[in-house]
Amino acid sequence: MDISFEQRMQEAAQLPRIYFDHAATTAPRPEVIQVVMSVLQDFYGNPSSFYKEGHKAARILEESRALIANGLHVLPEEIFFTSCGTEADNWAIKGVAHARQGKGRHLITSKIEHHAVLHTMEALEKEGFEVTYLDVDETGLVDPEAVRQAIRPDTILVSIIMANNEIGTIQPIQEIGQVCDDAHVLFHSDAVQALGAVPVHPHDLKCDLMSFSGHKLYAPKGIGVLYKRKGLRIERLMDGGAQERRQRGGTENVAYAAALSKAFQLALETLDEEAQRQTRLRDRLIKGVIERVPHTKLNGHSVRRLPNNANFSFEFIEGESILLLLDTLGYACSSGSACTSASLDPSHVLLGIGMPAEIAHGSLRLSIGRETMDQDIDRFLVDIPLVIHRLREMSPLYDDYVKGKLSCLIPPEGGIDVKITGSYGL
Amino acid sequence: MDISFEQRMQEAAQLPRIYFDHAATTAPRPEVIQVVMSVLQDFYGNPSSFYKEGHKAARILEESRALIANGLHVLPEEIFFTSCGTEADNWAIKGVAHARQGKGRHLITSKIEHHAVLHTMEALEKEGFEVTYLDVDETGLVDPEAVRQAIRPDTILVSIIMANNEIGTIQPIQEIGQVCDDAHVLFHSDAVQALGAVPVHPHDLKCDLMSFSGHKLYAPKGIGVLYKRKGLRIERLMDGGAQERRQRGGTENVAYAAALSKAFQLALETLDEEAQRQTRLRDRLIKGVIERVPHTKLNGHSVRRLPNNANFSFEFIEGESILLLLDTLGYACSSGSACTSASLDPSHVLLGIGMPAEIAHGSLRLSIGRETMDQDIDRFLVDIPLVIHRLREMSPLYDDYVKGKLSCLIPPEGGIDVKITGSYGL
Repeated sequence: MDISFEQRMQEAAQLPRIYFDHAATTAPRPEVIQVVMSVLQDFYGNPSSFYKEGHKAARILEESRALIANGLHVLPEEIFFTSCGTEADNWAIKGVAHARQGKGRHLITSKIEHHAVLHTMEALEKEGFEVTYLDVDETGLVDPEAVRQAIRPDTILVSIIMANNEIGTIQPIQEIGQVCDDAHVLFHSDAVQALGAVPVHPHDLKCDLMSFSGHKLYAPKGIGVLYKRKGLRIERLMDGGAQERRQRGGTENVAYAAALSKAFQLALETLDEEAQRQTRLRDRLIKGVIERVPHTKLNGHSVRRLPNNANFSFEFIEGESILLLLDTLGYACSSGSACTSASLDPSHVLLGIGMPAEIAHGSLRLSIGRETMDQDIDRFLVDIPLVIHRLREMSPLYDDYVKGKLSCLIPPEGGIDVKITGSYGL
Repeated sequence: MDISFEQRMQEAAQLPRIYFDHAATTAPRPEVIQVVMSVLQDFYGNPSSFYKEGHKAARILEESRALIANGLHVLPEEIFFTSCGTEADNWAIKGVAHARQGKGRHLITSKIEHHAVLHTMEALEKEGFEVTYLDVDETGLVDPEAVRQAIRPDTILVSIIMANNEIGTIQPIQEIGQVCDDAHVLFHSDAVQALGAVPVHPHDLKCDLMSFSGHKLYAPKGIGVLYKRKGLRIERLMDGGAQERRQRGGTENVAYAAALSKAFQLALETLDEEAQRQTRLRDRLIKGVIERVPHTKLNGHSVRRLPNNANFSFEFIEGESILLLLDTLGYACSSGSACTSASLDPSHVLLGIGMPAEIAHGSLRLSIGRETMDQDIDRFLVDIPLVIHRLREMSPLYDDYVKGKLSCLIPPEGGIDVKITGSYGL
């Protein structure tokens, strides 16, 4: 190679950093930060209070709720503010389980849910509930027919993530919703990664409950939303005051509710063009990486995929090491979910799509965003071969492969379907 | 009277509004808003991420945790960020109940807890737990001896609010903590109103768990803290990612954690002098109101009382009407907890201290704060007699009393102990 890792590292010190981890969190937009500041300064009243300052804060809160409802094509009374997507998931799933346990104690989910869903299911198992964890295919898709077959007379809830946070696969939510509707079983979807990236309309998708988070769409960390279909009664997660129509105690985070509403509006204003733009960048990235780095495959679905998500497996090396060297060269990327980054176990999502543990360990998630430009992709496509090459030079596994003592799991020419990537349903 | 309500109403339109509802919520301090802005702009990374942006955010989070721990005289690993005081209460109480139900299913609390505790207890009762609701005396005090007598072999938790949110009574927390310690029963205290107003040191107070909220001490709404004694294991309320040492899933609200830390530091810097200053203003307010308005009594304790709290009952009239007219004259006040303001029932706290419902309905809570000045008290002491006089003129009950058809419950010269108010333990 003409250019060395050391040379790029020196150059990187002079260059702006490139943030490729929008699936972990996003930098709040300036307009959103402005909303937070304005509410904290001028609308500090308690929305439950009976006087001018309280009414002003309540108006901000209800306007925010109405705007979010409007963007989701649902009713304002179907929107409940929570502190994050995890709270929304916990509330939806435990809330249904505890409210409906008289009818049955069986729940259905998939093996590739976010931990906010999986660990909630496990907590319910300890309480005596039974959970079916559906398999997915090698692209991460749940088969609606498998959902139909898993439903039993005592099934009370199905929960399937709309767009996977690691591999970006977008599920056939409407079809699964129809299956649940036909069987009179409640349907929840964690749409944290989907909101702001692709159209999300809970009524059309036949969802009874849907979870959202602000910080994936350029609002701050610490605000989420539970969509709950009108008339559906579930148990509270947070008992307390009369806030959120008596469904969720706790003084409302008015500033962040307004921030989320603003961020969602801004996202909707450019949703189609931004999805197309990011899909184009993503596909440049995917093709470029697979072409430039041998023994590399794309994980997830090539078409039913979030516009901002690319997830690769690089054989013979460790994801952690890739992250470290990329960080040195100025890139913020992830090996999977930030929520599990304290763990050394291979990703349950990658194992869930049938990947051998040795390859799952060498995975890299790149999630682009509204700030990402063509030049960021260009720069990355220069650097990633250097990083992988350097790590493979140090890898005993790669050494064995080169010496013919070991065969490869990913062929040199790379993985699946990269020629048919493109925009999903937009 | 020389001055009319109408005249004061006209004048009020030209005057700044006076915020007397700091117990409901507070306006974030400029320094705190600055911290929020700074973190949202410059430290937007996910604290769980393995790269520069993530490490920077994690450092902010851990520094905030350490500063809060330091102010409470506890260890950083005993501090868990939550989305609010209500979440901390729910987590503490349900967490103990679900972790210890093998040892017993009996809990003890008081009749004048915040709804975040009371409604959590009621939710546990539906699950089959048994709860003893202790009586308080007419000043709102829980007797530690009553706690001792209520403890049974199957008691797993005692939860007593440190300072009452409506009447400001400060409980003998250390004595109750000692009783629990002697009996090997866990002790939780909701210290949401106490933090930043009086010294709060969970170890000295012999608390195993303590709940705090940011927005009562000039931080934003949407951040709280659970103090959990090192080594104590309770069940999670929010299952999910590995955040908060695997105890509370959900991406951390780094900006608000830093804001709470800042607000707490600022509060501690002037805690003693501000407590003395507010106590002096509070006592001027209490004496002034009782002197100027007949048939009025102070609710709560005259000495063991939050420096910022005054709570009155005005006989013959309704609290709602008082709030409305005071709002018109430029005052933000409350009839009790903002969290229950959607309800028309008389306050459970006022009923809990033995007040007849007809007087409890005519109550007014004034909670002053760091912005409150002598001139605010002066202005209020002119207005409150006008408001009460006007409402009593329209009151059929007062008419009956004047005509001798009804006797009064509060004597014309007013209520209890107002001569002995003063600073509590500072």
